[in-house]
Amino acid sequence: MSIRPPAEIGMALEEVDTPALVIELDAFERNLARMANALEGKPVKLRAHSKTHKSPIVGLKQMALGAVGLCCQKVGEAEAMVAGGIPSVLVSNQVVGASKLRRLAALSKQAWVGVCADDAGNVEDIDRAAAEFDTTIDVLVEIDVGAGRCGVEPGEPALDLASKIDSCSNLRFGGLQAYHGRSQHIRDYAERKAVTEAAVELTRQTVALLKAHKLDCDIVGGAGTGSFHFEAEGGVHNELQAGSYVFMDADYGRNLNQDGGFFDEFENSLCVYATVMSKPTDDRCSVDAGLKALATDSGMPVVEGMAEVEYLRAADEHGLLDLGKTNRKIELGDKLKLIPGHCDPTVNLYDWYVCVRNGKVEALWPVAARGAMY
Amino acid sequence: MSIRPPAEIGMALEEVDTPALVIELDAFERNLARMANALEGKPVKLRAHSKTHKSPIVGLKQMALGAVGLCCQKVGEAEAMVAGGIPSVLVSNQVVGASKLRRLAALSKQAWVGVCADDAGNVEDIDRAAAEFDTTIDVLVEIDVGAGRCGVEPGEPALDLASKIDSCSNLRFGGLQAYHGRSQHIRDYAERKAVTEAAVELTRQTVALLKAHKLDCDIVGGAGTGSFHFEAEGGVHNELQAGSYVFMDADYGRNLNQDGGFFDEFENSLCVYATVMSKPTDDRCSVDAGLKALATDSGMPVVEGMAEVEYLRAADEHGLLDLGKTNRKIELGDKLKLIPGHCDPTVNLYDWYVCVRNGKVEALWPVAARGAMY
Repeated sequence: MSIRPPAEIGMALEEVDTPALVIELDAFERNLARMANALEGKPVKLRAHSKTHKSPIVGLKQMALGAVGLCCQKVGEAEAMVAGGIPSVLVSNQVVGASKLRRLAALSKQAWVGVCADDAGNVEDIDRAAAEFDTTIDVLVEIDVGAGRCGVEPGEPALDLASKIDSCSNLRFGGLQAYHGRSQHIRDYAERKAVTEAAVELTRQTVALLKAHKLDCDIVGGAGTGSFHFEAEGGVHNELQAGSYVFMDADYGRNLNQDGGFFDEFENSLCVYATVMSKPTDDRCSVDAGLKALATDSGMPVVEGMAEVEYLRAADEHGLLDLGKTNRKIELGDKLKLIPGHCDPTVNLYDWYVCVRNGKVEALWPVAARGAMY
Repeated sequence: MSIRPPAEIGMALEEVDTPALVIELDAFERNLARMANALEGKPVKLRAHSKTHKSPIVGLKQMALGAVGLCCQKVGEAEAMVAGGIPSVLVSNQVVGASKLRRLAALSKQAWVGVCADDAGNVEDIDRAAAEFDTTIDVLVEIDVGAGRCGVEPGEPALDLASKIDSCSNLRFGGLQAYHGRSQHIRDYAERKAVTEAAVELTRQTVALLKAHKLDCDIVGGAGTGSFHFEAEGGVHNELQAGSYVFMDADYGRNLNQDGGFFDEFENSLCVYATVMSKPTDDRCSVDAGLKALATDSGMPVVEGMAEVEYLRAADEHGLLDLGKTNRKIELGDKLKLIPGHCDPTVNLYDWYVCVRNGKVEALWPVAARGAMY
């Protein structure tokens, strides 16, 4: 069954059915502009990550402000972005298995497609799929710059794999994927900076080693919303892969700036709009947005504009709020804005964005790659 | 974009694309039969909860084995179940807001529809919606039997609300909703039993009070997979609302039986099938099922048949596995079965069930109410 949108164009926000995934367009557009401004004149471009928004509509807006294309995390995500008009997609992840590689190769006939690899056998599989479709695919070597997840070791192992790619007749060596996922949410500024700079240094050495072997890196990609200034300053990365900056979330809001204040370079432009559906006592109520409406892996959502109201815990379809510390009168039927702890997996729960400006619904955008996990 | 199924009928399990939500049909059917057998001859029926499976196909199988209908948690879920042929749906939750109540009232023209309430103003709203559609809706009073979430207090407050419902011209007083959500996952058997029995006792007193005021409870509903034996034995509930028993999950598997062993009355019939997509070292690998493929609110998934392989943590699209304690050879491209920590919100991430018997795909069932959160 397809899910109808919870709103109509022109509706007042208060009329929107809940739970709904709401974009505040003014804040969202300011976030887009802030990132574009931050990178203006720098020798580094944005390749925004679509795993956050899963929407080619958002992606095209990012490209209109200077992004060179999008990153995707899954082939299905890349298919949805290309179908929506994005001309350049880098799957910033490993793709394993014949059927997925066949789709990846086919997609490279429609748009520029790159992919990451950290295994020689996988590189051969990508080459075989590319040959089958008579195409050429750019393959980046993912190096492990300290996160301990995917990627070969920097240095010689990266050189070996890059040489392997270079030797394949239907592949092009595309550069390096050097992303430190865990560094994004290191709270302390100095520590986050140090971890990222160490990652940049490993990347620098590897780029130099490859260059010494006549393997130039067209793309040196990495960075996220929490670290992108450090990679931008590092002088090695030329493509930044930030995604969350368009929406922000409660967890990024707990990162600290250099001055010890909270990370506020971008503002919360996304919320889950929810209704108070039960209020049996004065000191607690339940909203209709629980585990199926909000990702809680990075903590409970924050009630916007009501710091004294705590979202205590989520059940499948209930969010329990503590009203004991607020003077505000919250009644059954009231609608609240919840800032999700983690934007990416929250977005993936929804079929529609309800886009609002000045309290009025201005657009309904499909979450085109919702559920596109293979 | 609609999501195509990750498999075709007749395929071997090993060919199924990943991540995929796989039902092992033999185990699933045994679970259905076990519940039917457990309730056979008892004065209590199953009204299975569809918030677990979100599939009228599964619901009709439950009804074929004796269930009187289904519970739903959202109007959209109820619409999907009725559209799929389920003749009787109880929304075991509060429904707040004019547009949802209008849909609920309209749905009551297609099937028997009940709903729960814990607020007098909400009861008036339900009555108004029912009048608009010239229909009668059964409304159950939800009582708080100790979970501290929704529901009026047992006793007099329940009587007041039941009288209110009874006085509305387009409503019928339908009985009590008496569910203790938190008790389901109390690990210790004796404690879980004691908490549930206390809930049953509060329910018993309220039923008696209502009866003394000539308000008979057609339905006394409650119970889940963790507690249903206690409600079944309590002699007050006549409808049990277990849902997870069809699939089980890792978290229910951590509950204890009376003998101190793990809860094993039902078996794991659901898994997320995942591929090893990166294996840069001998002691760790990543699978392609992370936060967008698995709910982690109740803990990380368990790798089926490999107790010594730990799923350490989930990122958006990565699951990091510790291979340091296994002797098993796990290679890039291997496919593993992951038992989710929590089945309900995991199911909600998928568009398709891939149903397998003897290692071969036998059916593809849509997760019809996936994303039906309003």
